Amino acid sequence: SQAEKSDSVKVQELSVYEINERDRGSPAYLRLSQKSVNSIGDLVPFSNKLYTGCLQKRVGITAGICILIQNKAEKKGDRYEAIYSFYFGDYGHISVQGPYLTYQDTCLSVTGGSGIFEGVYGEVKLQQIIFPFKLFYTFYLKGIKDLPHELLSKPVGPSPSAEPSPDARACEPHAVISGFTD
Amino acid sequence: SQAEKSDSVKVQELSVYEINERDRGSPAYLRLSQKSVNSIGDLVPFSNKLYTGCLQKRVGITAGICILIQNKAEKKGDRYEAIYSFYFGDYGHISVQGPYLTYQDTCLSVTGGSGIFEGVYGEVKLQQIIFPFKLFYTFYLKGIKDLPHELLSKPVGPSPSAEPSPDARACEPHAVISGFTD
Amino acid sequence: SQAEKSDSVKVQELSVYEINERDRGSPAYLRLSQKSVNSIGDLVPFSNKLYTGCLQKRVGITAGICILIQNKAEKKGDRYEAIYSFYFGDYGHISVQGPYLTYQDTCLSVTGGSGIFEGVYGEVKLQQIIFPFKLFYTFYLKGIKDLPHELLSKPVGPSPSAEPSPDARACEPHAVISGFTD
Repeated sequence: SQAEKSDSVKVQELSVYEINERDRGSPAYLRLSQKSVNSIGDLVPFSNKLYTGCLQKRVGITAGICILIQNKAEKKGDRYEAIYSFYFGDYGHISVQGPYLTYQDTCLSVTGGSGIFEGVYGEVKLQQIIFPFKLFYTFYLKGIKDLPHELLSKPVGPSPSAEPSPDARACEPHAVISGFTD
Repeated sequence: SQAEKSDSVKVQELSVYEINERDRGSPAYLRLSQKSVNSIGDLVPFSNKLYTGCLQKRVGITAGICILIQNKAEKKGDRYEAIYSFYFGDYGHISVQGPYLTYQDTCLSVTGGSGIFEGVYGEVKLQQIIFPFKLFYTFYLKGIKDLPHELLSKPVGPSPSAEPSPDARACEPHAVISGFTD
Repeated sequence: SQAEKSDSVKVQELSVYEINERDRGSPAYLRLSQKSVNSIGDLVPFSNKLYTGCLQKRVGITAGICILIQNKAEKKGDRYEAIYSFYFGDYGHISVQGPYLTYQDTCLSVTGGSGIFEGVYGEVKLQQIIFPFKLFYTFYLKGIKDLPHELLSKPVGPSPSAEPSPDARACEPHAVISGFTD
């Protein structure tokens, strides 16, 4: 028998850049394992800046925590369990949870949202561009109304040279979304 | 084109008070940043008591963690990322995630639930009454059956003088919900 | 009036074993309360191994954190708030949140998922078999397509003597799911 899930539910794609501009004291690497190698017990609260996929507007911030699960010596990297939210100013927020691997792209689950994201579900693809300072996300969102145009501008494909516009970085009034989160 | 989200989904409002009666050792402010000002790196596990909106019945507890994201000197307050659950005794629980600002009301997302809250989604408005001891929440819940009457009694509007009835505070049998969480 | 939730949504049951084989450095009991009795402030990041309910295949891992909420002297145990994910190799993951009581079975909420679990909701029953080394979970999942057969094999009922097959424990190719998480 077939489960009832419809394949016809509308999926909306939303792209954002997360950039650590080193002005928020983030991340705080808490070496609570007291080991010299990253180990379970270490916790990493963090908060970075968010820009639209087109890099022309400051959107807000990310906020949450990464829980160190395992150091992968052979990959020269780490597995984390990540639990955080994406803040979109007056539009509201999206909460996510899932794997963050420092050496590989991953897919996290969307666990909820507020404002225009109330009732949202789906998943988000995380692409690492420059570890740990620049990441590109593509959300695949269901359960919500049509997203506003200013969030849907054509994204700049992920690349190390991708940078927010100077106006967006300076949070000029025309280069921020309404009530952007700071 | 219009997304498929129906505007006709039933929303159920549910109000509760969260009160810190200073008898649970909560909150534990973990100053892991090792800075004198609240800073990213600080973590705040907490658990408080929950009462119905009418303050006549003890419901249960909250349980979770606040992650310090940023001290806002100009607001004389802090931004936290909050991840916690509301426990409703035998009825089950609701999990939430989102912003907790010590200087402003916020809206968090409902990420899931158990028991009568299995399948729940929606959001919850957090109103601070007396920081950090008394808070008022209004849930806007979707995806679940009709809530039981004892959770839906007319709430006492949020005010500093609002207090649980002595019987509810004492957890008298007629002043608790079934199997209230302690 | 009746809320709109349909009783006819298909529920899929999925059973897994979580086993701590003491080879992952887990759990890390972080006694941040600095008290001799388990107390609020303590945090417990963890990651264990996951096997199919029939114990013939290694599935992946769990990864997340338990937040100590209250020591229950009369129960000789503890209440935790648990936030973690279950990793199913190439199939994706399921995130959950809710109560973990060391002295009693509990029910947690499913907050989201990725891959074949994208859009999932529902709840999961946690049964403790040997604290804290062997647990049995029964997921009640909604919102997703039919699960693959290899995840649905008839579970071995929870018992202290239940053990993964030697091949599954050794991660032999025929005794793991596709791309099992390690």
